[in-house]
Amino acid sequence: MSLRGEGLEGVLTATASAQLSSLMGPVDMYGGLTLPPEATAGPARAARRRGTQACRGRWARCRGRGRDEKQLGGWSVPWGHAAAWPLLLRKVAVRPHPPFLLSPLSQPRSRAAAGRLGPGRARPAAPPAAMEPRPAAPGPCPGDSRGAEQAAAAFSLNPAEAQPRRRAPAVAAVLPAGGSGERMGVPTPKQFCPILERPLISYTLQALERVCWIKDIVVAVTGENMEAMKRIIQKYQHQRISLVEAGVTRHRSIFNGLKALAEDQPDSKLSKPEVVIIHDAVRPFVEEDVLLKVVTAAKEHGAAGAIRPLVSTVISPSADGCLDHSLERARHRASEMPQAFLFDVIYEAYQQCSDYDLEFGTECLQLALKYGHINAKLVEGSPDLWKVTYKRDLYAAESIIKERISQHICIVMDTKEDENHVGHHLEEILKNELNHVKVTSGALCPAGRDLEQIILEQCYNYVCVNVMSSDFEETRKLLNMLEESNLSILYPIVVISVYFLDYKSVPFDEKMESLIQIREYAKEVKKRNILLSGLLIYFPQDEQKLQASLRQGVTIIATLIKERNSGLVGQLLVA
Amino acid sequence: MSLRGEGLEGVLTATASAQLSSLMGPVDMYGGLTLPPEATAGPARAARRRGTQACRGRWARCRGRGRDEKQLGGWSVPWGHAAAWPLLLRKVAVRPHPPFLLSPLSQPRSRAAAGRLGPGRARPAAPPAAMEPRPAAPGPCPGDSRGAEQAAAAFSLNPAEAQPRRRAPAVAAVLPAGGSGERMGVPTPKQFCPILERPLISYTLQALERVCWIKDIVVAVTGENMEAMKRIIQKYQHQRISLVEAGVTRHRSIFNGLKALAEDQPDSKLSKPEVVIIHDAVRPFVEEDVLLKVVTAAKEHGAAGAIRPLVSTVISPSADGCLDHSLERARHRASEMPQAFLFDVIYEAYQQCSDYDLEFGTECLQLALKYGHINAKLVEGSPDLWKVTYKRDLYAAESIIKERISQHICIVMDTKEDENHVGHHLEEILKNELNHVKVTSGALCPAGRDLEQIILEQCYNYVCVNVMSSDFEETRKLLNMLEESNLSILYPIVVISVYFLDYKSVPFDEKMESLIQIREYAKEVKKRNILLSGLLIYFPQDEQKLQASLRQGVTIIATLIKERNSGLVGQLLVA
Repeated sequence: MSLRGEGLEGVLTATASAQLSSLMGPVDMYGGLTLPPEATAGPARAARRRGTQACRGRWARCRGRGRDEKQLGGWSVPWGHAAAWPLLLRKVAVRPHPPFLLSPLSQPRSRAAAGRLGPGRARPAAPPAAMEPRPAAPGPCPGDSRGAEQAAAAFSLNPAEAQPRRRAPAVAAVLPAGGSGERMGVPTPKQFCPILERPLISYTLQALERVCWIKDIVVAVTGENMEAMKRIIQKYQHQRISLVEAGVTRHRSIFNGLKALAEDQPDSKLSKPEVVIIHDAVRPFVEEDVLLKVVTAAKEHGAAGAIRPLVSTVISPSADGCLDHSLERARHRASEMPQAFLFDVIYEAYQQCSDYDLEFGTECLQLALKYGHINAKLVEGSPDLWKVTYKRDLYAAESIIKERISQHICIVMDTKEDENHVGHHLEEILKNELNHVKVTSGALCPAGRDLEQIILEQCYNYVCVNVMSSDFEETRKLLNMLEESNLSILYPIVVISVYFLDYKSVPFDEKMESLIQIREYAKEVKKRNILLSGLLIYFPQDEQKLQASLRQGVTIIATLIKERNSGLVGQLLVA
Repeated sequence: MSLRGEGLEGVLTATASAQLSSLMGPVDMYGGLTLPPEATAGPARAARRRGTQACRGRWARCRGRGRDEKQLGGWSVPWGHAAAWPLLLRKVAVRPHPPFLLSPLSQPRSRAAAGRLGPGRARPAAPPAAMEPRPAAPGPCPGDSRGAEQAAAAFSLNPAEAQPRRRAPAVAAVLPAGGSGERMGVPTPKQFCPILERPLISYTLQALERVCWIKDIVVAVTGENMEAMKRIIQKYQHQRISLVEAGVTRHRSIFNGLKALAEDQPDSKLSKPEVVIIHDAVRPFVEEDVLLKVVTAAKEHGAAGAIRPLVSTVISPSADGCLDHSLERARHRASEMPQAFLFDVIYEAYQQCSDYDLEFGTECLQLALKYGHINAKLVEGSPDLWKVTYKRDLYAAESIIKERISQHICIVMDTKEDENHVGHHLEEILKNELNHVKVTSGALCPAGRDLEQIILEQCYNYVCVNVMSSDFEETRKLLNMLEESNLSILYPIVVISVYFLDYKSVPFDEKMESLIQIREYAKEVKKRNILLSGLLIYFPQDEQKLQASLRQGVTIIATLIKERNSGLVGQLLVA
């Protein structure tokens, strides 16, 4: 039986998975992994204590799986084994591993020394005491816990390997981020360019760290950007990150990252992984499934990399700047990232390769082929893998991110659900007009438990409908909950406080008080990355006119959520 | 002396240009072109009469050149010759050439027949009678009239060629637009996907038609999209466009376009060009300078195409899906568009090439090399040439377009310029905060001539500052002018009507009347692609508070202009 990198989901048959299950005891199923004591004893509590809950979202999903066996649909895994997997994976997921930073040739470090800071020395990047740990990343995460299971399965194909080891070899990632971004045409290196006010590299780190089975992420940055990078890790509470100094070329940066992971650094907190992923800091949309594919294929073949069809024909120019020949498009591919390697293979290749390779080479797979004498498997990637290279790519990335975090709107009502009132009409129209968006309802009372769940699911858009009241009480409660959740650390949250107004019965001057109030609130919560606006919906007696103004209200809501522009916070818009 | 395609600007020395000037009389400098009678006798009037003013913006620029010899800076051309050029080019620019549509094998057509419509038959795409012709395209147009001069010069290098000809061979363009857009992941073919509510292909047509020296643009569309394409041409008043039916592959579509241009179609309104540009419908940002470079190089070498450095390494897979070898990135390039060819070379190549070439080939330069036995010159293109392929490219294109039309803001004051009042403070802050944007002032009174000029320059952003009045009189005048100009046919215009309000002296209810008014106006002008909003700026006695609210006002103005979202029209925003 062989598991190929591509199409793993389809290939894994019921028999295969039953075989897999019987091959593995719970302890060694994750590639023969022995967990450290604190991970097996109360991992969740330990993680909370240390403020390292990068996998909280995933963990929550893992926890929920027992209730829904259909997530295993098509796999037909014996329940006894299948049920054990999430538990085990959870242990791996929350294994506390405080991030620390090391210089390329890291010094022997004691626990006591870890607190001291100096140039190139370790800095514990724990979140500020006042902050709750942030939830995991939003957006689609294909693979989910199933992905982790596949990864676990992929690492245990060979029963001979399923032996406990002293250190925990698994998967690590190296991210060269020393580029200058000259093609972008801006002074800031592209990996530090902001998207929705957050640096691009933070999105890439988020994409990697939400994959629980990537144990360490080593980022290579230039000396001059080291401090900025530390601030990014701290501000956005990234976990499992280590920093090394970048080399003058991409290959040298990767080599530095690999050195930090190699076993010959005895006092490093990092341990040598079995498989190492190499990814680009400027490919923020990498998904778990493609990471899993390249890792699985690398485990089998020694090396693997994502490819994409060519967009343009590739030609070879002659010496005098004329066309020499064009390459047949169907027979070539663009080599993208991520790539993955058996650690020993790629590390040895880097140790052997020439200065010329390190200076002028671009392709890690080629090095593995040349010096590692292995076959590098090619894995078809998705269009999302594209590299942010030009300014237009930043625009595209921003639009994609905005679109992703606009797919879920939560309506918070100040009345009971079963009542027939204008708030529910608004909700209905919202559902009809934005039919590609998930619209859910949350209640602030009695204990706001529904809403807590919605916040945990990382909903970034809230419409607070005030039918009974004309003040900001409900909105304030919602804002408090959002502030406490720390949801807005990664993305701006849009909150729209909606009121209905019949001009004939309520004098407008009274509403102006609200206007002034909302501006003050908005200014305050904007500091926490929450974008608050007000919306007055005209509420006439005429049913047809009411429908029109509700529809207009929905258009305004959709615009505010789509654009997510801080320039309009505190406005009281009128529909 | 030889003029190479790349770096023409740098290569052309004072001596060379003097030589050029002395080689050419005014009549034959444009490649031996003899102009039709109506072009030489009152061209502007003739163009107005026929509603074909695609080059109006350019023409206005040409007209202005006499005043500013510095535009010729570095060229040191004898004044006598240089002065004659713009005049001549103007004649070429406005040469009336009513657009018409033809089937791939066009029928003999008389003037009388041109009016009749039927499937695959000619349709005169004149603008609706009520519409003024729209101004030319906005945004940067590198090359400008100087580009046209270079084109003129490039076509007259060889004195032997500078002879009058019976028909006017010059440059035409063929645009294959028969693609299905499957990579975009949307049902609409990508060339018809809307950006700011206008189909992508319209932007590409606009980019080509604003280059005066491209005489004909032949677009190949599938039968099922033929009617949609005709509507696009009519709605956006595109000029010099002919339609042919696309083939089943890109090469067959191009071949159909070339056939329509070939001389063996005796009754076609199209005439065989000397050089033909082949471009993609989904590369909307092509600039005049790169078109000029490829045309110049094609004239010299027979064929030329734009290239770009590779973004990703290109690899060759083995039969079993592993890496066979990777290509050295420095020795390869991505072949982009536009490309240009001597018409006879490429037409002959297409006539000779095999069915296999037509079905599976992608590279026109390769065909020219293989069958035309010429050297195809490669010309370094700009990043702007990229092809809209995926959904993210549409996002990027929209952001680029929005950014381009946001570079010029016109402040319209209802007071005299020399007065010291809050409107001018606002203008100053606008200039300081948006220092990358051109901010100009226009006056509506007495005859609004300044403003007419600004509209002619295609400014898409207007801030109407009402200091003296609290009504919409000024805004209404401005809106009337904008509606009459037809500026908004191609892009949405943002108009922000600004008022200053001291809560203590003016009751707010009074302002609410304005609020209601602006919503009605906004609804009305939105039909003409004008996005109107109101902005109330708080006007306290306290100087510091005033500065703060003015800055807040500028933030709102910048947001409205940047986002250009129709969902917020008619709002009265408060700063």
